[in-house]
Order: sequence, then structure tokens, then C-alpha cells
Amino acid sequence: MSHTAEIIAVGTELLLGNIVNTNAQAISQSLSALGINVFWHTVVGDNPERLREALDIARRRADVIITTGGLGPTYDDLTKQTVCGAFGQKLVLHPEILEDIRVFYETSLHVPMPENNVQQAELPENGVIFDNPVGTAPGCAFECGGVHVLMLPGPPHEMSTMLRRHAEPYLRKLSQEVIVSRDIMTFGMGESSVEAMLRDRMTHMVNPTLATYAKPFEVRLRATAKASTEEEARAMLAPVEEMVREALGDIVYGVDVPGLAEACHAQLLRRGMTLATAESCTGGLAAEKITAIPGASRVYRGGVVSYWTSVKGDVLQVPRETLDTYGPVSEPCARAMAEGARRITGADIGVSVTGSAGPDPDERGVPVGIVYIGLAAREGTFCRALDLGRRRRDRIQGLAANHAFDAVRRYLTGLPI
Amino acid sequence: MSHTAEIIAVGTELLLGNIVNTNAQAISQSLSALGINVFWHTVVGDNPERLREALDIARRRADVIITTGGLGPTYDDLTKQTVCGAFGQKLVLHPEILEDIRVFYETSLHVPMPENNVQQAELPENGVIFDNPVGTAPGCAFECGGVHVLMLPGPPHEMSTMLRRHAEPYLRKLSQEVIVSRDIMTFGMGESSVEAMLRDRMTHMVNPTLATYAKPFEVRLRATAKASTEEEARAMLAPVEEMVREALGDIVYGVDVPGLAEACHAQLLRRGMTLATAESCTGGLAAEKITAIPGASRVYRGGVVSYWTSVKGDVLQVPRETLDTYGPVSEPCARAMAEGARRITGADIGVSVTGSAGPDPDERGVPVGIVYIGLAAREGTFCRALDLGRRRRDRIQGLAANHAFDAVRRYLTGLPI
Repeated sequence: MSHTAEIIAVGTELLLGNIVNTNAQAISQSLSALGINVFWHTVVGDNPERLREALDIARRRADVIITTGGLGPTYDDLTKQTVCGAFGQKLVLHPEILEDIRVFYETSLHVPMPENNVQQAELPENGVIFDNPVGTAPGCAFECGGVHVLMLPGPPHEMSTMLRRHAEPYLRKLSQEVIVSRDIMTFGMGESSVEAMLRDRMTHMVNPTLATYAKPFEVRLRATAKASTEEEARAMLAPVEEMVREALGDIVYGVDVPGLAEACHAQLLRRGMTLATAESCTGGLAAEKITAIPGASRVYRGGVVSYWTSVKGDVLQVPRETLDTYGPVSEPCARAMAEGARRITGADIGVSVTGSAGPDPDERGVPVGIVYIGLAAREGTFCRALDLGRRRRDRIQGLAANHAFDAVRRYLTGLPI
Repeated sequence: MSHTAEIIAVGTELLLGNIVNTNAQAISQSLSALGINVFWHTVVGDNPERLREALDIARRRADVIITTGGLGPTYDDLTKQTVCGAFGQKLVLHPEILEDIRVFYETSLHVPMPENNVQQAELPENGVIFDNPVGTAPGCAFECGGVHVLMLPGPPHEMSTMLRRHAEPYLRKLSQEVIVSRDIMTFGMGESSVEAMLRDRMTHMVNPTLATYAKPFEVRLRATAKASTEEEARAMLAPVEEMVREALGDIVYGVDVPGLAEACHAQLLRRGMTLATAESCTGGLAAEKITAIPGASRVYRGGVVSYWTSVKGDVLQVPRETLDTYGPVSEPCARAMAEGARRITGADIGVSVTGSAGPDPDERGVPVGIVYIGLAAREGTFCRALDLGRRRRDRIQGLAANHAFDAVRRYLTGLPI
């Protein structure tokens, strides 16, 4: 049986526009993967009458209702009381939950639990309690007249932890189908070009399905299969991946990896090699992306942000002649920057980015969007020249950083740069 | 008269979790500033029956309804037809709008207009048309039985352009009040501590109001005043700002600035000084934050990401003895890194970050969360020692980068570091 869900977020800060409803997105993704149809999102403020109205509407049109927010200890946190009132559920104090909250305060926050947190331990008498390892508000779920109601906390990291640990297993039991997805990651073509190359094959697919999603500066293809077992679903996805690889060739850089920096990190680890960066227009973005990965120090030695031309000369050892003759945004400079990064850090690979990110052309009049990527390695030095067009500054920076990682992953997998 | 609004977003991609509803946030912010209460957000898919149901519910409880999405040229773009059907409005072809769309295709997209775009020029007979300078879908507004309905396109940049150019002026006419807000930015205390210091004064405030918002790694205080003129509202905010500055002292780093990096950038510009960075555990995050600002090259010379200890020695010229005796995560190393960054780049100020961001303690056993900030300038070298606790890696990195900028802004404004 297929289920229909409504997600109700409770919080005046959403209605004031102070925060964006990322919880609804995260829950929607989970429910889609579980084969549960989400037909409605609703947001109400910290107001019991309007929440009650939203619940009355939702229970008429959905059989899974998930609320977020309003589980805190303060006077305006009214979700539990209002939901239990609407569904005739009795709230009772759970002493073991109260103890959990007290311990969380004492060991993680190093302060005694304030007395108004006691109400967080009051939960529906007949239901399932979802413990909260990263905050104080437990969640819960109950079933009433064929409608499943789940209450999750509002802070996104508490919500997503509880969603994964408790809500997804609870909901999976409602569904008979297993849904498995694989993300095929590509870099080097726009979404419409990728779609055009696959359109003939994609339009006829029913199960598995294949959809394209534009991520910032790259395109993700999600292949999804429904089956009665996970093994069966996985077996259905293998030929889809093969078809995509055949159609798109080497712009596919990985499957189920979060991004290009992570793909490079994994390749470097596998080969026992180290990387250094030399960045001008990206200003440290490439370094930041690779050092965001836990354990990055095994493969990343360091880098230089040579924002001023003098730093390219003094720190990265780019010859004065190169800078004077060709300027800082040039192929010879990109090559020398990559070589300098490799030399001064002792890394196996040096990768560089120099370009004009705008909003104004650089001092020598190089137009916005012109970017050079250099890569220095044992075999020699390579360069990629790019015209990224007159885009916004942050987009040129993001794209240029991804091109640097793409050059590295292509070098590491023996492809032309 | 005070108005009540509901925002209805139309789009299956929202319900699948492929995108997040940033449009609802942007519109909510605009409406709050106009003094219009937003009591509901609703999201429905590209489904005329459910949109019709949402409209029937909304018109009973709101007198301003704003839809986003579903104005495109394809078969699943059904917002206009459904809304006009629900409110008994007739759609008629507007030849001048059709001409605009044709011109947009030919001059901006360089292709002839496909025939299915003709329906985008069909708009309510009695209403206001909102032209779309950045896309093909025009928006519109009409009034029916005391309810104002506004339809805006789904792509966020088209929506926000139309919101600013057309929807805000349309809605301003409905409202008699002017609302002005100021953001007082602080760094150095958690949200609950800031709130505790202001609580006695905040609870009695009705107009102007003062609210705290936790931004990543800092706390924003928003003071908001309602009045009949902008001048009057501004005058009401001045004493609030003064009160906050008096209560919180030098943790207030600016008013109406987006963040600490921008505050440093402005201070450096004002003094005609330049900055260099030396980063270990933040891995380029501080460099990335300052180079994200257009025109950063006037104040930022560059930096080094000295992730490996050898790079601290070879590139930043940290003495071997310092590294051997105290280790890379130490006050002497932070000082030497800042001095090295200043020396090799020729900047007026060198700022450094070295610490243990986790997930594991560093090789010498320094616990996760220990971070040192160094600042080298003409007057000498300063250091700030921090214990940020066992947080997540990205939080330690974000907090540490903000501490580096905080040290710079304190130095530049003559405060102890």
C-alpha cells in the first residue's frame, strides 16, 4: 500500500524568513527514497490554534504526518501538547527520558538541567520514543486511526540525526518496497547537455528511473530502482550505471561520492601520493574544500594563496620574467605556480588556479571568466585554459576550484588533462 | 489595517526534496519588513487538484496569497489556469507581453521562441502584470473579494527580481506602516549568554523590538521599529543600538555588516593596510572568506595553508626549534606562523590559525578543539589561546576562522586581542 505524507514545520522564525525550511527538504528526500509520496509541506508559527488547524487539515488528506520543531523546553514550544490534544493521546512523564536529559546537561553542557526541561520528558503514553543523542528534545511517533504521526525536533542537525536513526526505520516498516539509489557524478558538461545525451534512453525508463540534478558546478545523475529486496534493486541499477558511463564517457568521475574533492582525496590515498595547491582567483577555496575532509592531512601537504602578484614571485617562486611578460593570469604563470607549489611543499602533485573572477577585469585587462589551471607532477607540467564567461564572482570561483580537482583526478586516472 | 498572508509554492521538485524553498524565505522577509503577517507557508506539487484545494483553504484564512512557480511554458505549469479558475478570473492573451517574450528569446537566448511559450502571455483580464526582465514568465496580481493574489515565477533569481521590482511596491500600497530593522552583529558569546545579558530589557520591548539570532559562529541581534515614516522608525532604533552596545561592550563588531570578514575588510580599507594569512587547521577557510568579497585584493595580499609541519618550516619559516620543542599546535608556533606570513608577503598584518580540528587528536596528542590564533603587526606579535571543545570538525574550523578575523578587527580598533 502506498502512503501519502504531509510535513508540518512549526516555527515563527520560518514565517519571518529568518531561516529556510531545510528540514522539509531532508525529510522529503528520505520519504521519496522510502517510496512514500509527499504531497504537502505546511509551515505554521508557534501558535497552537493554527497548528491545530493544520493538523485537522493534514489528517484528512495524509496518512503519515511528520512535524518538526516546537519540542523545546520554553513556553512557546507547544507541538507535543497540540498534536496529542488533536489526536486524543495522553502525555505522561517518562522518568528514564528525564534522566537522559539530565545526563546530557551535566556531561555535554556542563550545567545542571533547568526545571522547565522536565516537560521534554512528557511523551505520548502509547507510542514510540525517539531518543536524541545530540540535543535535549526527544521525538516520538504514534498511530491513531490509521494515521501515523511523527514529531521531530527543529534544529536541523538534531532533526537529521533522529530522522536517520529513528524515523526512517519506523517508516520503512510501513512500506513493502525497497528503494535503492545510486548517484553517478559528472563534471565537465551542463545539465541540459547531459540530459540531451541521455534523453532517448531516459524517457522510456520506468523502473529503474534516471534523473539529472544540477549540483553547484557539476551534474549528478540519480538512478533509482524499486524492488522487493535490496539485492534485486542493486542488480537492476548495474546496467543503468554501465549505460551512463558508455554514453557520457570520462566526464563520469565517480559513483556515490559527495564531490570532486572527495574523489581526488580517495584517489590520492589509493596511490599514496600528496597534493599541494597554489591559488589566486579562488583565494583558498580549493584548499578549504580538501581540508574539509577528515583525515585530509594524509594526502594534502598545504598550499599558497598568492593573491598579490608579489606573493606569486616571492613565495611561489614564479620567475619575474614570466610575470612581467605574460602577466599573472596566463598559462605560463599557472604552470610556474603549480611547479612552485610542488617544489616548496615537496608534494607529488602541485595544482594551481589563476584567473579573473571579477566583478572587474584584472589590472592587465584580462576579461572576467578567463582562468588557467596548472598541474605539475613527475611527468611534467600540464595546463587547462578556460573561458568561464561573465558569471558571478562566487560561481567563477566555485567552477574554477572544481576544474582544479578535475585536472587532478584526470591526471591520477591516466586521462588527458 | 493589518494583513495576513499565505505563501503557496507550486513544484513537485520541492516535495521530492530536490530543492529547498528559499522563495518562501525571501518573500517572508519582504512581507515582515512591510508589516504583513505571514501565518502560513504551503507547498504543493504540479497538480491542479491539490493546488485548487490549497487555494480554497488559503482564501478562507488569508487576505494576501502569493504563489511561486508553475508559470513556465510546459504542460505541467498550471498555476495561472488553476488560480484564475479558483477566483473566477478570465485569462486573455496580452500581445505586448507576447512580444516581450519573443524579444527575450531572440536577444538573450539567441533562439526563436517556441510556440508553447504563447500561453505565458495569457494573463488575468483585470489585474496588474509584472514583467520579468530576467526570464520569460511574467507574473501578475489581482484582487477578488478582498483577497489579493500575486503570482510569481519559481526560479529564485526571477522570483526575487520580480518581488523587489513589482510585488513589494504592490504590497506597500496595502500597508500604512513602515518597518525598519538594524542588525547588530556580535562575536565572542553564545546566543543564550547574549540573551541573558539583555533579557530584562528585551522582555518589555514592544516597538521597537529586539531579537537574537544565532548565525553560524556568531550572534546577530535584530532591532526592528514600526512607524509611519522611515525617519521616525530610524530615530526609534538609535537608542536601542546604544543600549545594546552599552550592555554587550566590545563584542559588538558592527551594525548592518554581513560578517566578521567583511568588517575586517572595511577596517583594513579605511586604514589603507594589508593582511596575510597562515592557516593550519582551518585549511584556507579564512583566506576563502576574505577573497569571497569583491575587491579583496586591495587589502588581502595572500596566505599559506601550512597543513603539513614541513610546510610551516619550509614556506612560513617557522624555526625548526619551535616546531620540535613546542609542536605545530602551540602558542610559539602560532606566533611564528603569523610573523612568517607577514614577512614573506610584506603585509602589514599577519594572522595565523593552528589547532586540532579533529576528528582525532593531533599526532602529539593535542586534544580536539585546542586552537591558537597569532597576530603579527608593527607593534609586535599577539596570541589568543582557545579551547573550542569537542565539536564537529567543520564547526571548529568555522569558529577558529572567525576568531582569526575577530583578532584582526580588535587589533585594528585598538582593543586587546
